Amino acid sequence: MPNPSLLILAGDGIGPEVMAEVRKVIAWYADHGTAFDVSEDFVGGAAYDGYGTPLADETLAKAMAADAVLLGAVGGPKYDTLDFALKPERGLLKLRKELDLYANLRPAQCFDALADFSSLKREVVAGLDIMILRELTSGMYFGEPRGIFTEGNERVGINTHRYTESEIARAARSAFQLARQRGNKVCSMEKANVMEAGILWREVVQKIHDTEFPDVQLSHMYADNGAMQLVRAPKQFDVILTDNLFGDILSDAAAMLTGSLGMLPSASLGAAGPNGYPRAMYEPVHGSAPDIAGQGKANPIACILSFGMALRYSFALGAQADLLEAAVNKVLADGLRTADLLGPEGGTPISTSQMGDAIIAAL
Amino acid sequence: MPNPSLLILAGDGIGPEVMAEVRKVIAWYADHGTAFDVSEDFVGGAAYDGYGTPLADETLAKAMAADAVLLGAVGGPKYDTLDFALKPERGLLKLRKELDLYANLRPAQCFDALADFSSLKREVVAGLDIMILRELTSGMYFGEPRGIFTEGNERVGINTHRYTESEIARAARSAFQLARQRGNKVCSMEKANVMEAGILWREVVQKIHDTEFPDVQLSHMYADNGAMQLVRAPKQFDVILTDNLFGDILSDAAAMLTGSLGMLPSASLGAAGPNGYPRAMYEPVHGSAPDIAGQGKANPIACILSFGMALRYSFALGAQADLLEAAVNKVLADGLRTADLLGPEGGTPISTSQMGDAIIAAL
Ligand SMILES: CC(C)[C@H](C(=O)O)[C@@H](O)C(=O)O
Ligand SMILES: CC(C)[C@H](C(=O)O)[C@@H](O)C(=O)O
Repeated sequence: MPNPSLLILAGDGIGPEVMAEVRKVIAWYADHGTAFDVSEDFVGGAAYDGYGTPLADETLAKAMAADAVLLGAVGGPKYDTLDFALKPERGLLKLRKELDLYANLRPAQCFDALADFSSLKREVVAGLDIMILRELTSGMYFGEPRGIFTEGNERVGINTHRYTESEIARAARSAFQLARQRGNKVCSMEKANVMEAGILWREVVQKIHDTEFPDVQLSHMYADNGAMQLVRAPKQFDVILTDNLFGDILSDAAAMLTGSLGMLPSASLGAAGPNGYPRAMYEPVHGSAPDIAGQGKANPIACILSFGMALRYSFALGAQADLLEAAVNKVLADGLRTADLLGPEGGTPISTSQMGDAIIAAL
Repeated sequence: MPNPSLLILAGDGIGPEVMAEVRKVIAWYADHGTAFDVSEDFVGGAAYDGYGTPLADETLAKAMAADAVLLGAVGGPKYDTLDFALKPERGLLKLRKELDLYANLRPAQCFDALADFSSLKREVVAGLDIMILRELTSGMYFGEPRGIFTEGNERVGINTHRYTESEIARAARSAFQLARQRGNKVCSMEKANVMEAGILWREVVQKIHDTEFPDVQLSHMYADNGAMQLVRAPKQFDVILTDNLFGDILSDAAAMLTGSLGMLPSASLGAAGPNGYPRAMYEPVHGSAPDIAGQGKANPIACILSFGMALRYSFALGAQADLLEAAVNKVLADGLRTADLLGPEGGTPISTSQMGDAIIAAL
């Protein structure tokens, strides 16, 4: 049997430097019996620079053929003045859409060694472990009509929020399945008090629950209250299920609760791909951080743990993923810290590549 | 000259009991030279119970004729199963829309005596004083088409996000005017990297700034990053300008940062009404809290400070508003606390009406 294949799209900003550390980890696994066929290409601004488009057709074809995609980050001030259709983000959004990666898993986990980094009180966030399931291929991000139109003598900006029953149902199933492997609780968030699309969302989630997952505890919450509750008492949540736009906002708020954005990975999953593995893309929650790019300051852990999620969710290599997570925890416990993790209580400052090396050593 | 008129719509849940305390405050001002003609009617579930609709035409007509509306809160589990068009929220949304209250001012202010209530570290929130300017009459809340439709053999939920240039421009003007009276800084939030409507938003805000308010400091931020920054370092903001839906989520998150939701008022302002005062509605940020309704546990301060905002923003009675705010601060400094404000560091527990009386005494 051939090795499963990985396509690396390092992207922009700190993407390439954190991805360099992931390559070390991939190489370590290859030396220890878990090998992948790795190829690499451009996405985002880097693809615009190289190919004149944020996602070339050839790159998309490679992504469709790959067993998993590892993405770094996209975007940067250099591309701010590009047309909407050429912006780095369009490359990322096209990948999500074309690969039909409807289930975006965003853990918000507070690492014990780093709990003091949070702007929240230690007792509010210590031990925090939420999983946000954000629907990723529909809603406001992709609904038509969209654009800037002229009406009478002025312009109007329009975007459409749109969900079919089956789109809601498949995201809900992913959330319930995840919950069964965790705390068995799902809280679904929408604005059913204001949006008809939210009423349909709530109804379908409830139906999937009642007919297929009656054993999972389900609650519903308005998204504004959800934002409040995340700030007030985040540990009340296990899995949060929400749509593309609310998920964008709420998962970022949740990530920031942990105080260590540089630590958080994400997975985006779809239906089965060519070799039976789910179509999948893994990326850190943090962005391209152009302000620190190229300075060896970036924290590669989020990107490395994203590879860990690939081991777990694409390739069912849970034990190997556990090993990687243990190595990360060991390095943190040893006090090794990239710039973003250096607080008043100290630690040993190290660079991006030293962090990668330390994790290899811990493995 | 006749007294300016106030229409009180106490609404549901704790609405009536907090509004009873506001009436005491209004009576005190009448005794001290600032009198209003006060009338009262139903809104929300109470209006459904009384009139079969969450906002009767007669009530709307009274609101249109009033110089300011004071609203308590709407909603409750009793009304959860009502049709969308009959839900309590529709009454509130219809008032906002028909009075054309496009500028929703939501202060997120951390009261010094209460800083320890926040789930955030004291140093992150002490002294916090943000004003969120949420556009309130357009966007996702009101855009057409909307509804649940059938397509092929399944249903689809649709809502439309829609902003004209003039809608954006007038909200932006309000934000810049507010900023001039405060820290002179506006941060505008949208998702221009994903939504065309966000591109138009950013462009119009920038244009209004450059042509009419070049003296105000303007920045733009993606709304997801905005949510993060609110959690990470909220004191970086002065005025935040955003749309109806993002404003709903972000203002709730911001309110919760302060740790004392029961303290936060809001104002919704429109163009000039019949007597030259702006059309205006004032309401607490907190909801109807059905779980504690009728038990004398509710904190009336948010609703009382909403009347204070009416003094300031509708009737240009800044000195009288200052007086009311000073009275509230005095009562807090004296350690008087409704149930929601009782923390580990103690205080004197008092009821809703005792809090009202204490504020009158302090006046
Ligand atoms: C970069 C941007 C297009 C993207 C999004 O809005 O989805 C990002 O914020 C995210 O959450 O992955
Ligand atoms: C009650 C509800 C309709 C309302 C809204 O969504 O605007 C509330 O959440 C608010 O923020 O005033």
